[in-house]
Formats: sequence, C-alpha cells, structure tokens
Amino acid sequence: MRTVGVDLGGTKCLGVALEAGTVVDECRVPTPVGETALLDVLAEVATAVGGGADVLGVGVGVPGLVDRGGVLRFAPNLPGVVDLAIQAELERRLGAPVQVDNDATCAAWGERQVGAAQGYDDIILVTLGTGIGGGIVAGGALLRGANGFSGEIGHMVVDPDGPECPCGQRGCWERFASGGGLGRLAQRAATEGRAGHVLALAGGDPALVRGEHVTAAAGEGDVEAHAVLAELGWWLALGLANLANVFDPRAFVLAGGLIEAGELLLSPVRTAFAGLLTGASHRPGIAILPATLGEHAGAIGAACLFDIQREIRPG
Amino acid sequence: MRTVGVDLGGTKCLGVALEAGTVVDECRVPTPVGETALLDVLAEVATAVGGGADVLGVGVGVPGLVDRGGVLRFAPNLPGVVDLAIQAELERRLGAPVQVDNDATCAAWGERQVGAAQGYDDIILVTLGTGIGGGIVAGGALLRGANGFSGEIGHMVVDPDGPECPCGQRGCWERFASGGGLGRLAQRAATEGRAGHVLALAGGDPALVRGEHVTAAAGEGDVEAHAVLAELGWWLALGLANLANVFDPRAFVLAGGLIEAGELLLSPVRTAFAGLLTGASHRPGIAILPATLGEHAGAIGAACLFDIQREIRPG
Repeated sequence: MRTVGVDLGGTKCLGVALEAGTVVDECRVPTPVGETALLDVLAEVATAVGGGADVLGVGVGVPGLVDRGGVLRFAPNLPGVVDLAIQAELERRLGAPVQVDNDATCAAWGERQVGAAQGYDDIILVTLGTGIGGGIVAGGALLRGANGFSGEIGHMVVDPDGPECPCGQRGCWERFASGGGLGRLAQRAATEGRAGHVLALAGGDPALVRGEHVTAAAGEGDVEAHAVLAELGWWLALGLANLANVFDPRAFVLAGGLIEAGELLLSPVRTAFAGLLTGASHRPGIAILPATLGEHAGAIGAACLFDIQREIRPG
Repeated sequence: MRTVGVDLGGTKCLGVALEAGTVVDECRVPTPVGETALLDVLAEVATAVGGGADVLGVGVGVPGLVDRGGVLRFAPNLPGVVDLAIQAELERRLGAPVQVDNDATCAAWGERQVGAAQGYDDIILVTLGTGIGGGIVAGGALLRGANGFSGEIGHMVVDPDGPECPCGQRGCWERFASGGGLGRLAQRAATEGRAGHVLALAGGDPALVRGEHVTAAAGEGDVEAHAVLAELGWWLALGLANLANVFDPRAFVLAGGLIEAGELLLSPVRTAFAGLLTGASHRPGIAILPATLGEHAGAIGAACLFDIQREIRPG
C-alpha cells in the first residue's frame, strides 16, 4: 500500500511515494507565492506521486506552526500565508485522508521510522539550516504539544545579551548554532584575525565569509577553521545538553546542510556535550547521530505519519 | 481502595494515604542519613499510613535521577546514596507493588490529577526552591524520558557567562529564577544601592539579604522590592518561554516556597512571559498557575502513580 508525503519548503516542494518504507516515486516543483497557488501545487505534487494507485493517505510537512486540525497558523518563510486550512482543503481536493504537521516534526518521524534513529523510542531531531528546527519522539510517539506547536527548539534563549533574532528575542540558540550561526562566528573570527585562510577563501572581505568557507578550510586541515568549528560545536552542544536535561532522550539526530561537514563538526559537538550534560557520569550515553534521509527526510516522514497508529504502544 | 505515597525530601519524609483523591492519613519523620536507614524510614512511613488496609500500591518520590527500574541513581542532596534499588527493596519489605519516581515528576502528576492542573493534558510543573525541579505531563501521561531522568529543567543554561552552579556549569536557569536566585538578585540590588528597605529588613548587611526580605518589603509596597521581583520574574519567564517553545504546554504550574509571594511574583512573570514567547500572537494563551497541593504535592502525586494505567488514553 502506498502512502504519499509532501514537504513544502520555502523554495521547493518535494513529494515522495512510499511503499514498505521505500521511496518508489518522487517529484519536485518550485514553491509558488500565495495561498491558492500553494494548495494547487500541494495537490498537484501529491497526485503526481500518488500515481493513480490506491493511496492510504497523504502527509504534508510545512515550515511553521501547525495546529491539531491541520491548519498552518504561522509560517514566517511563506509570505502571506496565515491560518491556511491545508488538511481540510487537500482532503476535499484529493479525496484521501491528509495529515499536516511541522516539517521538522515530520523529519523526526521519518528518521525514526526508516532513517538514522530506527529502534529508538526517545529522540530529538535537530535541523541545522539558516535557523534550527526540531522534532521530538517520546515514548515511541511524536510529541506534538497542546496545540501541535512543539519543537521550536531554535528559539530557546541561551544568552540574553546575544545577537538579535528575527523572532524578536535576543540570543536564541539558532543565532549561534545553525548554518547562519557558523557564518557569524566565522565573520567575527575573520575580523579579529583568527581565520586567515578562511578569510582568503572568501576573497579577503570578512563580510563575505560563509560557513562553507570554514568547512572547506577545515577539510584542508586549517587549524583556525577547526577552532571556529569547535566554537560552533560548543554552542550546539550547549543547546543539546539543555534539551537532554529536559527530555532525557536516547539520541539526537542532526540534520540539515551543516552536517555535510561530517566528523569535522560531530567530533567537537560530542566532546563538548560530554562536558555539559548534568550528572553525565550517572547516565547511559546519549548518541549524537547524523541524519541519513537527507533532503527527503521531511517528505518521507510525512508519508510515514500514517504509520503512527500502528506504532503507539499500549500504556 | 487506598494508595500510599511517600515523598522523601532532604530533611523530612512525608507519607500520605489517599482514597478517591483525598488524603485520609499522613505521617512525617526526619530523613535519616545512610541507605539502610533511608529504606527503614520509607518502609516505616508507608506502613504507618497504609494502616493495615488493603493497599493498591505504594508510590515513592525521591530527589534525584530515578531509572525505569526504580533505582535511585544519583541524589546530590542525600549524602552517600548512590544506585539504591528502592523499588525492589521496598516491594520485598512491604509485599505491595511499589513505584519510584523523581519527586518533581510525582508532584506534577499530583497537581494534574487532583491539584491546580486538573483537566490539563499538557503541563509542566516547576518547583521553585533552593534550585528548580520539573515534572512534565504530555498528552495526558508523564513524560519520563529514555531512562526516567527527564525534567532536569533547572539546569538549562540560559547565560553561559552567568554564575557558577554546583552542577559544574555556568548560568543554569536555577541560578537566576529560584528562591536562591532571588536572594542573589536581591543581594546585588542591595550592594548597588537599589534596595534600601530590603537591606534594612536584613539588618543592613547585603550578605544577609534573603528572598523573604524582598517579598516582605514588596508586600509593604516598597517600589525597589517590586523591581527586584520583576527582575526575578523576567528570568523565570525566560525559562518558561524556552520550555513553551520546546513543549507547547497548555499550562505551567509553579510550586515551592517562592510562590507564597502570590501575585507579587506571578504578575511580573505573566507580563514578561507574554513578551518572550515565540509567535505569541498566533497561539492560545498558556496559563501560569500556582500549585494548590503545597508541601503534600510530591506524596499525593506518588500515591497517584497508580492511577496512570487508567489515565493513558488509546492512541
């Protein structure tokens, strides 16, 4: 039996068809502007990968706060979209059951069902992109919160004197520990003369330094670039330790463009995390794993939303 | 049918017997030192309030990390206690089913079942004492984590340059927002000449200023004392907003000695919280409630642990 998952991103809309945990078809189109055009594209992508086969259901992951009724309440990266009743509208158009959830929540479920965290019942997925998103699996089921808004982990404030965040606060975790955060840390290092080779790769202007320059230089063995990655790793580990103290997960799954740096990033994160976790010597280790589903995680996880009923265990 | 709950604190051990959600008997004795003496006292208190009646089960709340098998792994406030198999040992002595959990986790369940948060399925209990403890109810069930160690919310780092914490980190939330935190904020205000009446109440020595002096002065209408409470309220709200972004609860329940200050504290907390929550205008309000079970919350909640099986809803 086929399930369909669609991941609506700020720039593209990716659909997959899943059979027995395997992607059997996929489709991508640019994300249009405007609520009606968005619904058209979601229906078009779902229909394209559904392929005329019997479809058990269509899961949709979207970047924003989604309530329990499948209404997208707030999506800062989708201009003009407010209170969009995606679930109801797509069910009407497609004639199939639809579930809508936050994209990182979907990705967490995908990694748990068929990705890096198979077999783990308590995990937190952390997506490291321009900002930080999160999805939480607790006791083998998705933790959605009272309204469906859980997982906004990037907006944990970790330094009230830190840089301003578009959300209106100062010192949100994602200001330090995301792809954008790496760029900021690297620009500061370049300005302070602590990142000569990184600065050279960026053409000599500190304002043009990006995260990619740091990972490229670190890959060549540049010591200063490794120091910047260690600084990023410390901030990342700080937030992971906060979440571990609160949730007690078995594993973190790190996703997003930043983890292409591989062990260059994961190694300093693991080192810093071990020193930051409360009562670490009294706990089993908490794994820090790279995601394995890549850019497909959200769409695959959305398709897997229809596995949930089978997965909740009796109390 | 009677259930028994015992709350093991650093200084006293409080037992209650519960019938239909009402305390029908209670007993308290000082907490002794040493593992064997602790087990003796737990068994003695449970037997005293069990009263020879048929006892459905005995719940025990303890201050520390408790694993899923009822072993107290780590208890910084109980000297010499490490890896104590409380559940197995008490079941052997009492001949009744025993469940052991963290004290704040028990208190969260008590407030949810028969206290301030009845009817709420997604709550976080925050105990404001010398430090900060936490218990989490998600989807109508206790969230325990992979090992049973969830809820160590006081050790979220909210300012990496903040004061040292006995846990080994800097800037843990409980350094700012607990009863101990209020004392520190007040001492700084007194030293900087911003708390004249508070300082007078403490006898003129800034080092002797305590939280009680602040709440007493605020109760008399002292403006500077209100400013110190507002500062505390801001730090408290900062951590609550972090937790709200992560969990999306319906309500927070605040417990511990500090909430005896009532609206003097709750009012600035609510004001600051409204300004700190991400996407606040797109969410239903999150209630911030004072606990209603007082010092009995842990024991009552421990007794209520035997309600859990009845309370978990089908997926």
